Amino acid sequence: MRRASIKDVAKAAGVSTSTVSYVLNQKSSESISAQTTQRVWEAVRTLNYVPNLNARSLTSRRTNLIGVVIPQTEPGKEFMFSNPFYGELLSAIEYTARRNGYHLLLSGPEPDQSYVGIARNRGVDGIIIVGSYPTKSLSELHQLSVPVVLVDTYVKDPVFHTIGIDDRLGGLLATRHLLEMGHRRIAFVSGSISEQGVTQKRFLGYMDALSEFSLALDERHLYLGSVSFEFAQSVAQEMERRGNRETAAFATADIMGMGLIKGLRHMNRTIPDDLSVVSFDDVDLARMSDPSLTTIHQDIAQKGISAVEMILAAADGHKEKQESILPIQLMVRDSVRRIDPNQESGAF
Amino acid sequence: MRRASIKDVAKAAGVSTSTVSYVLNQKSSESISAQTTQRVWEAVRTLNYVPNLNARSLTSRRTNLIGVVIPQTEPGKEFMFSNPFYGELLSAIEYTARRNGYHLLLSGPEPDQSYVGIARNRGVDGIIIVGSYPTKSLSELHQLSVPVVLVDTYVKDPVFHTIGIDDRLGGLLATRHLLEMGHRRIAFVSGSISEQGVTQKRFLGYMDALSEFSLALDERHLYLGSVSFEFAQSVAQEMERRGNRETAAFATADIMGMGLIKGLRHMNRTIPDDLSVVSFDDVDLARMSDPSLTTIHQDIAQKGISAVEMILAAADGHKEKQESILPIQLMVRDSVRRIDPNQESGAF
Repeated sequence: MRRASIKDVAKAAGVSTSTVSYVLNQKSSESISAQTTQRVWEAVRTLNYVPNLNARSLTSRRTNLIGVVIPQTEPGKEFMFSNPFYGELLSAIEYTARRNGYHLLLSGPEPDQSYVGIARNRGVDGIIIVGSYPTKSLSELHQLSVPVVLVDTYVKDPVFHTIGIDDRLGGLLATRHLLEMGHRRIAFVSGSISEQGVTQKRFLGYMDALSEFSLALDERHLYLGSVSFEFAQSVAQEMERRGNRETAAFATADIMGMGLIKGLRHMNRTIPDDLSVVSFDDVDLARMSDPSLTTIHQDIAQKGISAVEMILAAADGHKEKQESILPIQLMVRDSVRRIDPNQESGAF
Repeated sequence: MRRASIKDVAKAAGVSTSTVSYVLNQKSSESISAQTTQRVWEAVRTLNYVPNLNARSLTSRRTNLIGVVIPQTEPGKEFMFSNPFYGELLSAIEYTARRNGYHLLLSGPEPDQSYVGIARNRGVDGIIIVGSYPTKSLSELHQLSVPVVLVDTYVKDPVFHTIGIDDRLGGLLATRHLLEMGHRRIAFVSGSISEQGVTQKRFLGYMDALSEFSLALDERHLYLGSVSFEFAQSVAQEMERRGNRETAAFATADIMGMGLIKGLRHMNRTIPDDLSVVSFDDVDLARMSDPSLTTIHQDIAQKGISAVEMILAAADGHKEKQESILPIQLMVRDSVRRIDPNQESGAF
């Protein structure tokens, strides 16, 4: 026998399905007459109707819950917000979600953990994934029938919505600025370069700029570690050890630009006098830092806002795959000085 | 008439309440005989039993969801993480929750919004509230039967668990350090002072230190605005305008210490040469800043970890009210210089 649905109950009681929901939920705020209530309960009993307890809400198919996943890209790293970029992005996501009556389910799963079970059990209306995510785990998410927005990844996916920036252009703008200011030996300071991540694109932009100035890539200028203040701080010493005499550095995150400033200061050197730095993101920190950082500005708040809006549009029946590339620009502040390109001496 | 409970159904059907749950949830994984299933359904009909649709799961009392509320203390402030303190705290909460199989429901409701509806609809296992929260909304939360942990508030509540630090002691340690270093005209730079918030206690500590040195409170030294980089930056100019010739400032958050550094620099003055600063919290930023900030260190990560552990202990049946005061200490870095207390001239 077919299991009775809420529609069957509504029909039998001669009321709308929402009235049935109200009665079942015993919502006191709704003014439903005792008679109607009685009729609904009779229909429930007659039809042996059992509400689907897994449905989070009977009055709406929506749970008004958006899952936000900030993968732990570096195993062993305990906390997700050591880079303030994530805090600023999450703030914007939370604010936009709240304004639209949604809440956030926040997770920072380990790289080998699938999100499918979590999303299914929690019944999220949509999922926002920030940064790199294992391709295998991503394809599993196709099992779910909820919209997924990928933020800052270059994974190709035929269904999932994407939002990001042109990271390669960013790398080009950052490095070109240093070249235009006379720098030739430019360190590339970043976390590890992964296949579909943003760092690889920023690195390609670094190479694009070098080739615009007919310079070859010199691998001795690459300083690859982790996206952290501490790593960048240690790079200052590593630069001295290698003795490449860099006059400038492109750091792929503001937090690393900050680390370079501090690392140099510990060696009694200063930015931009001894090393010019362009960083990336333009988090609040970039303008608070001293010197303030010349950086590639991206609209972090807009990224979060758009991610939520994509979920809302999809939930409203917008079927097409949405893709958004937000604009970026070079923000000139105080961490770069002009030098004579023929000048031979660098800080290190 | 008393509404039938799941226990009544179990008794009438001669089965356990979990068997009733299994049947109602129609869990195929459980081997329950057709006869038993039949008996349960009969009891459900006879007793007119309506499952509580708000209970997320009938088989387990846990939803493994912890609600985290970061109230918007300043209306109109869009984003919750403009102070990195919140990002660091949330990171620790998320990490600890995840390690224990829990997820976070993140909300930053407006001051006038009650959280009761949200918590009830989402069926959270516990609630962590960070910072000030309207007393009225707080008392409404007593309606819920889930553990609540209040972080950083001095609201008196007989039931809710609390975790915080001795903010008054922190204010004392910060100000006493400045006094011991020879400073006498010490600005107090903070957000607005609210009744049960941490700022009021830090202010009392500031006054305690002054009285230790037999100094009276001079209200001209109070600079009250918002807990933000921008406000503190503007304070530098306000100090000059007032002409109080302060030689030092106690800023009640690191983010404000950063703002003072920047504000002074814009006036071609430096910290600590022209103004000594002690701030509060010891967020990552405090050591990244230049000069690094002498500040009151609190273990932000431990605060988050303990908050989650309190929820878990309560969920495991620990009934007593849990209260925890985490240790703090003065962290001496580079933003304070010793002066001659008899020296008359301040920077402003």
